[in-house]
Parts: sequence; C-alpha cells; structure tokens
Amino acid sequence: MAQYVVARNIYSEDKFNEEHEKIYRQRKTIINHVTDYFRCNRRRVRSAALSLLPVISWLKIYRVKEWLLSDIVSGVSTGLVAVLQGLAYCLLASLPPWYGLFSAFFPVIIYFFLGTSRHISVGPFPVLCLMIGSVVTRIVPDEGPPMNITGFEGLSRDDQRVLVASSLTFLTGIMQLAMGVFQVGFVVLYLSDTLVSGFTTAAAVHILVSQLKFVLGLTVPGLSGPLSLVYTLEIIFTRIGSTNVCDVVISLVIIVLVFVVKELNDRYKSKLPVPIPIEVIMTVIACGVSYAFDFTTKYGIEVVGVIPKGYESPMAPNIEIFQETAMEAFPMAIVGFAVAFSVAKVYSVKHDYTIDGNQELIAFGVSNVFGASFKAFAASTALSRSAVQESTGGKTQVAGLLSALIVMVVTLAIGFLLEPLPKSVLGAVVIVNLKGMLMQFREVPYLWRRDKPDCVVWIGTCLASILLGLDLGLAVGLGIELVSVVLRAQFPRCSVLANIKGTDLYKDRKDYLDVFEPEGVKMFRIPSPLFFANIDFFRNKLVEALGFNPLRVLRKRNKALRRIRRLLKRGELHCTPKGYLNTSCEPFKDLEDEDSAEDLDLPTDLKDLPIRVDWSAELPAHISVPRVDLHSLVLDFAAVSFLDISALKGLKTTLKELIRIEVEVYIVACDPYILEKLHSCCFFDDEVTPSIFFLTLHDAMLHVLERHPEAAHSKTHVNKIVTTVTVHHTNNSVRSRDRNGVETHF
Amino acid sequence: MAQYVVARNIYSEDKFNEEHEKIYRQRKTIINHVTDYFRCNRRRVRSAALSLLPVISWLKIYRVKEWLLSDIVSGVSTGLVAVLQGLAYCLLASLPPWYGLFSAFFPVIIYFFLGTSRHISVGPFPVLCLMIGSVVTRIVPDEGPPMNITGFEGLSRDDQRVLVASSLTFLTGIMQLAMGVFQVGFVVLYLSDTLVSGFTTAAAVHILVSQLKFVLGLTVPGLSGPLSLVYTLEIIFTRIGSTNVCDVVISLVIIVLVFVVKELNDRYKSKLPVPIPIEVIMTVIACGVSYAFDFTTKYGIEVVGVIPKGYESPMAPNIEIFQETAMEAFPMAIVGFAVAFSVAKVYSVKHDYTIDGNQELIAFGVSNVFGASFKAFAASTALSRSAVQESTGGKTQVAGLLSALIVMVVTLAIGFLLEPLPKSVLGAVVIVNLKGMLMQFREVPYLWRRDKPDCVVWIGTCLASILLGLDLGLAVGLGIELVSVVLRAQFPRCSVLANIKGTDLYKDRKDYLDVFEPEGVKMFRIPSPLFFANIDFFRNKLVEALGFNPLRVLRKRNKALRRIRRLLKRGELHCTPKGYLNTSCEPFKDLEDEDSAEDLDLPTDLKDLPIRVDWSAELPAHISVPRVDLHSLVLDFAAVSFLDISALKGLKTTLKELIRIEVEVYIVACDPYILEKLHSCCFFDDEVTPSIFFLTLHDAMLHVLERHPEAAHSKTHVNKIVTTVTVHHTNNSVRSRDRNGVETHF
Repeated sequence: MAQYVVARNIYSEDKFNEEHEKIYRQRKTIINHVTDYFRCNRRRVRSAALSLLPVISWLKIYRVKEWLLSDIVSGVSTGLVAVLQGLAYCLLASLPPWYGLFSAFFPVIIYFFLGTSRHISVGPFPVLCLMIGSVVTRIVPDEGPPMNITGFEGLSRDDQRVLVASSLTFLTGIMQLAMGVFQVGFVVLYLSDTLVSGFTTAAAVHILVSQLKFVLGLTVPGLSGPLSLVYTLEIIFTRIGSTNVCDVVISLVIIVLVFVVKELNDRYKSKLPVPIPIEVIMTVIACGVSYAFDFTTKYGIEVVGVIPKGYESPMAPNIEIFQETAMEAFPMAIVGFAVAFSVAKVYSVKHDYTIDGNQELIAFGVSNVFGASFKAFAASTALSRSAVQESTGGKTQVAGLLSALIVMVVTLAIGFLLEPLPKSVLGAVVIVNLKGMLMQFREVPYLWRRDKPDCVVWIGTCLASILLGLDLGLAVGLGIELVSVVLRAQFPRCSVLANIKGTDLYKDRKDYLDVFEPEGVKMFRIPSPLFFANIDFFRNKLVEALGFNPLRVLRKRNKALRRIRRLLKRGELHCTPKGYLNTSCEPFKDLEDEDSAEDLDLPTDLKDLPIRVDWSAELPAHISVPRVDLHSLVLDFAAVSFLDISALKGLKTTLKELIRIEVEVYIVACDPYILEKLHSCCFFDDEVTPSIFFLTLHDAMLHVLERHPEAAHSKTHVNKIVTTVTVHHTNNSVRSRDRNGVETHF
Repeated sequence: MAQYVVARNIYSEDKFNEEHEKIYRQRKTIINHVTDYFRCNRRRVRSAALSLLPVISWLKIYRVKEWLLSDIVSGVSTGLVAVLQGLAYCLLASLPPWYGLFSAFFPVIIYFFLGTSRHISVGPFPVLCLMIGSVVTRIVPDEGPPMNITGFEGLSRDDQRVLVASSLTFLTGIMQLAMGVFQVGFVVLYLSDTLVSGFTTAAAVHILVSQLKFVLGLTVPGLSGPLSLVYTLEIIFTRIGSTNVCDVVISLVIIVLVFVVKELNDRYKSKLPVPIPIEVIMTVIACGVSYAFDFTTKYGIEVVGVIPKGYESPMAPNIEIFQETAMEAFPMAIVGFAVAFSVAKVYSVKHDYTIDGNQELIAFGVSNVFGASFKAFAASTALSRSAVQESTGGKTQVAGLLSALIVMVVTLAIGFLLEPLPKSVLGAVVIVNLKGMLMQFREVPYLWRRDKPDCVVWIGTCLASILLGLDLGLAVGLGIELVSVVLRAQFPRCSVLANIKGTDLYKDRKDYLDVFEPEGVKMFRIPSPLFFANIDFFRNKLVEALGFNPLRVLRKRNKALRRIRRLLKRGELHCTPKGYLNTSCEPFKDLEDEDSAEDLDLPTDLKDLPIRVDWSAELPAHISVPRVDLHSLVLDFAAVSFLDISALKGLKTTLKELIRIEVEVYIVACDPYILEKLHSCCFFDDEVTPSIFFLTLHDAMLHVLERHPEAAHSKTHVNKIVTTVTVHHTNNSVRSRDRNGVETHF
C-alpha cells in the first residue's frame, strides 16, 4: 500500500509567505472593468454588430441541400400547431381569438433576425396569456364598467381589451429590451428549476380552471387578484346545472383521442417520420362536423365566430395603461424570458451551439415591442410547439419563418374556415397540452426525500401562485427560495475536532474512537460561511463548545483585579514571593454596582501590580474567578467561503474576548481572499494579529504543542503526534523520507 | 525551526472508514424533535411557567436596599420624558395628543410582568407611530371622506382615527403573540444591523419631514403610499409663504438649546449624577410662556389643546379594519419587535443577563393587544427613552412601572397644565431626538470602503424606505439583503491549484512561482457552496480551466466510433496488430444528421470493436477527435458547505461527462454531511462511485501519481513529490500517453 510521507516546516500564513514569495497580481478595479467594457476597436464593433444580428452568422453557414427540406417540413407542421394554439391561448388572454394569430406571426419575424436559438418556436405561451388575461379582466371586467382610462372612449369592450393587452405587451417588451441592453440577463439564474417547476405547475392549474368554462359551455366572468381561482371554481360549481352536454361530449372525445395519439407519438417516436398532427386533424374534423350539423344554432355551442380577413392597422400603446400595469409587466417580462431561455438552453446543449442570454432578452424585447404595435400579445415560447418544431427536423429559424408564413396564409385567406370551430375544442386542446406541466406534481415526493428545503420552495411557490395569482406568487416563491439559501447556511453543524491518532487528519471527535485531543486545546470547525444571520449562532455554539463565556470570565477577572488593588491600597493584602497573602479575615464585600461597567470589558491590566496574578491558582481574599482550562483555540475556516461586515465585527469581538483571557486563538485554512479582505477592513490591531493564521490544522496544532509541551504529555497515546515535532532549528530545505508500511491494517 | 513530519497511509474516504471505524450516531428525526418539544414533566412545566412570567424570577432576587432608590430616580426621570414623547409622537400617528399618554401607560404595565429585559422603556416608538400615521391617513384622510367601513358611522374623525390605530395595534399584537407562541422569534435575525440602520435612517427622514409642518406652523394634509414624502415636501414648499414666524422662532430656540444641553450631558456624563432633563424643563417653560402671553390667540399658534381627564372606556377592535390593514400590520409587528429586541440585547450584554426572543414577542404581543383595547397605539421602545432609563440608574422594570405611574398622574390630574403647550415645541423635541438616527448616514462611506454588498443593502433599504414608504421599503430592503447573500456566493473565484514543491500544500498556481503541476492532472478549487444560482457558473469555469468541453469530446468520440464501425462493416477498414488501417482513400463524408443525437451522450461503447481505439493517437480514415491531455481531475470541495438539488444534478452530469471521456475525477475534503446527503440522494451509480472521494488534496494527488507514474516524470523538479509515493502494486486500467511540453503555465 502506498504511503503518505511529508516532512516540511510548520507554516503559519506569515512564515509561508516569507519562504514562498507570492506573485503580486494586479486586480482589475471596477473602473478597469468599465473601461474595458466600453473600449472600442474595429473587431469589437464588428463582433458586437454580429452578435446583435445573429441571423448573419448562421445564414452564412446555412446548408441549403441538407437543411432546407427539413426546415420546410418542420415549418409547415409547426405552423399548423401555431394557428391552433394561437386561437386557443387567446381564450386564456380573454381576447377575440384571431389576435392569437397575430401573436404567432409578428414576433416570429423579428426573432428570426435577432434570436440566437435555432430551435424554439416563438409565439403565444399559455402562462403569459393567462397573466395578460388576469390584467385584461381587471381593467376591463366582463361585468361592470371598465377602469377610468381616457384612451377607452369610443372603443368596444374587445377593442379596449386589445388596447390593454398590447400596451401591456409593449411595456413588457421595453422591460426585456432594457434588461438586455444593461446585460442583466443573469437574473434568470435566480429562477431555479425547482421554482420554475412549482410556478408552471400552479400556472397549469390556473389554465385548467380557466378552460373549464369552455369545456363545460358555461358563462363565467373572468376574475383576477388573490383567490380568484377559488372564486372562479365557486361560480362554476354554482352554475354547473347549466352545463352544455354537447360541449362536454366534444371536449371529452377530443381530450381522450388527442391524449392517446400523443402517447403513441411518444412511444413510436423513432419509427414515425413525423409525429401525427392529431390536434390539427381533430380541429379540421370538428370544424367540418360543426359546420355540417350547424352546432351553434342546434345545440347553442359557442364557436370561434367571425375571423376578419387581413391585418389591422398599427396602434400606439396607452401610457395610462402602462402606469396601471407596471407591477404586472415586470413578472411577465421575467417569466416570458426565463421560460424561453430555459427551453432554448436545452436545445442548444443538445445540438451543441451557444445561445446568448442578453441577446435573447433583446430579441424578445424587440419582438414584443414590434408585435404590440400590431396588436399581438406577449410572445415567449410554448414547450409543446417548440418540441414539434425540433422533433419534425427544424434546423434553424427558417422553420420558424415558414410557420409564420402558414399563420399568415390563415390570416389573409382561409381564416373563415375556422369560424365554425367550437370553443370547447380549443379548450380541450389547451387542457391536453397541460399534461407535461401538471405531471410536475410528481416531483414533490422526490424532492421531499432528497432535499427538504427545495421541496418547501416548490410547494410554497406553487401554493402561493395558485392562491395569490401568478405575479404575486412568483414574488413570494422568489422570497422563499432566497430565504432557503440563507437557511441552509444559517444553522451550521459546528463540530469540535480531534486528531486521528498517528496522522495529520482531524475529524469530529464524536465520530471516531481512536482520536487524540491535547489538553487545553480546542479545535472548532465552522462548516459554513459567516454572515449576519448566523454569526450569533456561531458565537453561541462556540461558547457551548468552550464550556465558558469568555466575556463573563474577563469581567470576573477585571473585578477581581479591582478588589486586589483596593485591598493592596488598604494594606489588607501583601505580596510574598509565593503570591498574595490576605491579612484581613473578613470576606470581601460585593461592590458590583459602584463602578462603571464599561471598564470591565477592557483587557486585564496587570502592569501596576507588584507580582503576576495566576488565574488558575487560588486567589487571595476569597476572590473567586471561573477557571479556564483552555490555553489554545484553533478555528477551522476551511468552509468559510465569505464573511460580511456583521460577521467580521462579531468574529473580532469574540477573538478579542478570548485573547483577553489569555486563550491563544489560531485560524487555519482561511481562504486567501478572505484574508485579504480582513486586512483591508482593518480587522487586525494590537490584540488580533495576522500571526494567528496557519495553513492547516496540523500546522497550528504542532505550533501549539511546541508552545505548550505539557499539553501533549498530559494524556496517553500522545507519542505519535509528539514524534512528528522536532523542535530545533533546521534550514528551510525540505527533507523527504521514504518509509514503508508503518501502519498496515490489512 | 519546528518540523512537520507525517507518515501514514494514503486515504480515500472508503479506505479511511475501513481503518477507522466510524461511531454510529442516531440522528434526531423531525418527529423526535417534536416529541421532545412537547414532552411534559413537572420540571418542564415549572420552568415554562416561570419563563412565561419572568417577573417572578427577578422579583425574587430584587435587592430592595441597593436597587429601589435608583429605580425610583430612574422611573421619575423616564416618566417625565415618557409624557413628553407620548404627546409628541402622537403627532406622528396623526392622533389627538393624549392618546400618546395611554400608549406610555398600558403596555408598560403588561411588560412589567411578561418582559425579560430589565432596562428598556416600553412605549411609543417614533417609527411605529409614523407607520400607524400613514395607515390612519390612508383610511381616514384629512381631506375627503373616510374609507367605507361600517364601524365608522356616527364617529367623529378623531374617533375614527383612534379606532383605526387601535385596531391596527390589536392586529400587530396578535401577530407578535402568534410569532412568540410558534417560537419564530429567530426571523429577526434576517434584519441585519445594516438593514436596520438603513431603515431607521429612512424613518428619521420621514419623521423629520412629517414634523416640518408643526415647526413651520403650516397645515399640510397627511399623505401615505409611495412617494408621499416627495408630495408632502412639494406641498410644504408651495405653502411656505404662510409660515408662522412665531412657531419657527420657538422651534429653533428649543432645538438649539436642547441640542446643546444634550451634548453637554453626553460630554459630562461621568460627572453628572443625573442628566439634565432639558426637554422637560423647556416644555414647562414653553407651557408657561404660551399660557402667559396667550400665544394661541395672539400669534395663531396651534397648541395641544384640551386634554380630557382620566381614561376612556375600552373598545373592541374592528374586523373590517383588520382586513384593510393586514399588509401594514405585519411589517409593524416585525419592526416593533426587532427594534425593541436589539436595544434589549445591547443592555443584556452590558449587564450580563439573558433575554428570550420568543418571550419578548409574547410580552409585546400581549402589551399591544391589551393596550389596543384601551385605545393605546403600538408600543415598542424609543432608544432615547431607554437610554434615559438605563443611564439614570434603572435596574429593573420597577423603574418602568414608576414611569407609568408618572404618566398616570398626568392623565388623571395635571394634564390640563399641558394644554397651552405649542405643537411646534413637540415637533422640535421630536426633531432633536432624531440626531442619533440621522447620524447613521455616516456609516455609508465606512461600509463602502469595507464591504460593497453591505453598502448596497444599506443604500437600497434607505432609498426604498424613503421613496416607497416604510412597509414596502422594508420588504424591498429585505429582498436586497437576501439577494446580497446569494450574490456573495454566486460568482465564486474558482482557481486551479498546484503543489508547492516539497510540501503537501496546494495553492493557486498563479500566486506562487515554485509550484509543481503533474502532467495530465488538474486540481480545481470551488471556493463556495454550490446551488442553483452558481452551478452553471461553476461548470463554465471548470470547462474554461480544463480547456475542452467534455460533452463535446464525448460526442465527437461517439461519432468517430460510429464511423469506424460503419467502415469496418463496409470492409474499408481493417485491423492490424498496430491499429486500424484504412483501405479506402476518399475522405469520410459527414453523416452528422443521419442518426439520433441522443446516443451520442452515452458512454463510449468499445465492446464490439476488434481492437481498442487509442484516442490520443491518430485515428484512421481522417477521422479527427479533439485530443484530451488530461487523465485526472481533482476537485477541492473544502469550501463547499452545502449543495442543493440543482447543484447535485449539475455536478453529477459534469462528473459523468468527464468519466465517459476517461478522465478520472476525485473529490477531496468533502464535508461528512454532504457525503451523507449524496448517498441518500442516490448520487452514486455504476459510473460515479463513492471511491472517488479522498480525504485531502495530497492523498488524491499521491493516488493519481501512483496510477500514472509518468505524470510525475514529465517535468523537472518532480522528485520531491514522487519520492513520497511507494507503489506496491497498481492495477491501473486506464493509461494515458507520455507527451512533452503540452502545458506551459508561467
């Protein structure tokens, strides 16, 4: 078996730096970073221009022969799905259906030029549609007058709603654009997978409930705000008697068929050249049947109705609506981008190309601003549609462009064919597509077993989003998530370490039997960063491990000194070569409250006393001071990855208290950056010096044993550690020994 | 100089656990904790009862002779200040002044029995008063009708306001009580010193602005909500022409005099038996002068006015107001408690007794519920008043009780004496007392130099609280603070380590010259916990340090294998003892898109090939695969204090990718709890095994050198580390080629 043999000097940080010169590396200051960032040369301008128009780079390498055909197949399939989803998701936004076609057209055109992902299908995203819907019904409710906004005069209710939706989209786009320009795309990092999963699951529940009215053929006013889901369910249950049976039957048939075929698509993915476009087929059939049997008049079924041909003239957003909806636009900007980015990332890893978060923000920002001007509503990507685009062989956004063309054809020419389509069919299609999002509920038991805090984040986000609404829910979820990070570090499992006999290793002394703890030495490990939320906890744990409160000991000692001085002055105490001798017999009266308490926290001042006071011996005049059996404390800082100002202050106070009662404190394995920070924050003074830092626990321990040889001899089984210290001066060269099998346990 | 000499086995975690038996320690499950918590025996009941009524413990040890006199002196001084502050802070709450006297009486009585702090003076706290004021003016505005609440019928405006204030206080009390009962007092840990400092500074600015109208003698309606401070200032400036000069003169005189005398009090603290009660003196003088010269009618000065004698009958809170004010009551509950607790903690450390956070919550909760029933408003503690109580010698809450008696005397008997007191005097007294809070601005440059994130928290909290109002501002500040914790760990400074020659120490290779890096080995240090926000960052840094993307290499290798197989099948490739030989000359066509991409991420499967493919040699048929010069990667986990699920998944993916391209990965210095968690989370499988864990960097390095002896020989200066390994028997299956000069580091 191989051996670990080392012979070198004992290193404190100071000594190590003496022997091994550290290379001085110039750090970049903030100003350096800024000037670097704004430095301008031809290459940078060129690459900046290219990165602003990613289309240039990928069109240049477009392989027409290999890619074009698959792009066309993919574009057509995606386009059909996009038409259907455009209409369906419009119901979520409480807008007339054809505006969904605009949303599946305008943003895609812009994304073609500005986007860096080659596989996502840009367009309506159900969660965003629902968030728009909740704003729309808040400002222009189904029942009652709309909010008092000047731009609403002379508009029909639907037009008012379109104005609200497009203004909101415009604002969302501006926010995304701003985030992209200021390069703060990294904020999506805070939306962890767990949070997004909980949030989208809640969104799926909202979507499900919002589609119930179409599936059941009921008239239910759109509600918004906290608990709107509960109120909506309440209304649905009170009106359940007027369910349209025909709607329910159609929906159930569609749901079952689509579900089964989708499962088959999934199972025989490798064998099918293109997944069966079951939704499109069902829609066509439903349209035909509904038209042939005149469902509207015969069964009172609500259909899509008139779809005007062509596009509408552009429209300026309304500033008043900006003010009303700013609080909702921000979460929409974040959610829309975060979902699109995470889908794009999955495909970029799969197909091995890079996407640029900030450029994506710019792309979506411009897409939304542009789309909103043409009455489209907020675009992101739908998971299911992107999956269609990628799985049918889409290679680049050329497929996206083609899907937009299909949508355009529907808008300009054949939209009227969709007019007899029952809304319940659209509702059913939306519900079937929720499967993936609702299946995320299965994560809960998995998370609970693996990691409780993550599970709490999931459940908290989901519940808050269901009950409070998606925007507030997201904020609450984010809060829970941030608290969970702090909580993980807030109650660290501090431990007292001991040497594993015969090695340079130190482990929790409760975990192993053959450990060695030199007398009067404590080794204390802090297993987490130190900051405002756990510095008090750390101090309490340390006091617990020490067995005494250093501040209290210090005060008692200072009080004792005061009394000794007073006794000396009064002549009731004399110093003999053996120590102090008390000549008065009466016990010393308690004078606690006579003096100011502040002095008690200062270092013990022994200067003016004739002889030294030995705190561990009996004190004269019945003065008693708690005995401290500790001469050295070693703090293991290996896992302390950062310190904030509160921790720094708390740590310094603790160190001072210990040093003032003559306990030597050593800090080992401290991160070089933390050490640097301590220097720059004036952590060190006369009492707390940089010489307390050692490289490893064992270095510090050997140093302690050198200063206090009695510590090692006071227990049995100490020879092993003692032999490793040779206390005489050697030159700095390093000796290496070759030793065979000193310990063989096999 | 002392030497560090160690000779032991090389330890992986597995081997160490084999040799040193770990003691099995039963962990407490959540159920254990809960049953422990609810276990009931006589002693626990007794101590619980005692801790619910702390008055019992401290009254038993009350030293009448020594403490009573100082308590009386302190109680009288505090009582006088409490009367004045009660009246003054009432102006902040927009209530008739005498209700402040109730607030300085009822809560104190309850706190006497339930509180654990012996030195704080319970009663009105300006920040809370201001928060109440903002709710009061929102629900019952100065101009316009009050909110539509049934309980308001038949009440005067002042009575409506008192109802709002007391209902709000009641709700605050219930929240505090609930937090105390559920033992969640630890939440105040999240309010770091920095946050509280920024928040109270903002509160001081609010208070200053709110008092300007009294000092200037203007009529300004109380505003609430975001930006109300700006609007208030705007109104004041537009009305500045109608300033009452007499008010301004009185205020300035009071401000200057009180300020100077307070400074003198501070300077000669040690020489004065009791600080000069300058505020009380000035108030008495102002009352006299105002009465004598009839300020009200002569100069149009607003005075306190009629103070009804005696207490008012108790009143039930209003449920509708609860619903309206729940969002404001919560921050009030937190702020009121947090401030009182932090002041109490300072005194408890100074005077060496313990306070109990949860009991304090209960005490304040009951105080507020009780007080609210008698029309007092929310109580906490004012810093200045507590300082008076402590500095005049208060030893226990007996002083508090006496101060309440003084307040009672004023309420019942001599309140009418205060009727001619000008409100501008009260405003001036409030402003002078802001000095301490406003001085906190000085912390900003200090924080900026020491710790930028802390500074951002301070400024963010302060600005948000000034602009958005105190409740929203506190929430924003809390958010910034939590983000700051995450940010500290989000962009860790990862580094590549190298051996310091002749030692077992490893340091950043850029920092030292005399370092040794064995060829084909990378040591990578992660200096922070790993979690959702930084796992991608860590992966990018790792790929950067490695110089290649393991996933890309794996895919290229799998593609190459596919081609080799296809060539073999077609007979265009033959295997010879020296390797593969290509018999066809034409270069192999790119078939990239023909196969499913998923297989490419699986481990390379070499089973069915006739001879082994040597990735580092030239491949046949012009197939090129990136060369990997690395055979081992050592990850230093010493500073990884926690891992969440996202990090766990990301880490596992990375490890798998590396293992699949035949890079051996080792993790060293992993926290035992993290290792335990990895086991319980099914982190390990056939590819990622627990045997990759080693105790220290040097152990892993020696293990690597044992498996790859050539790594150590490929550079000069290697003898020192190599001699420390004695290889008894090795069975390394994976070997990498010996190459020269691949890496130059300096």
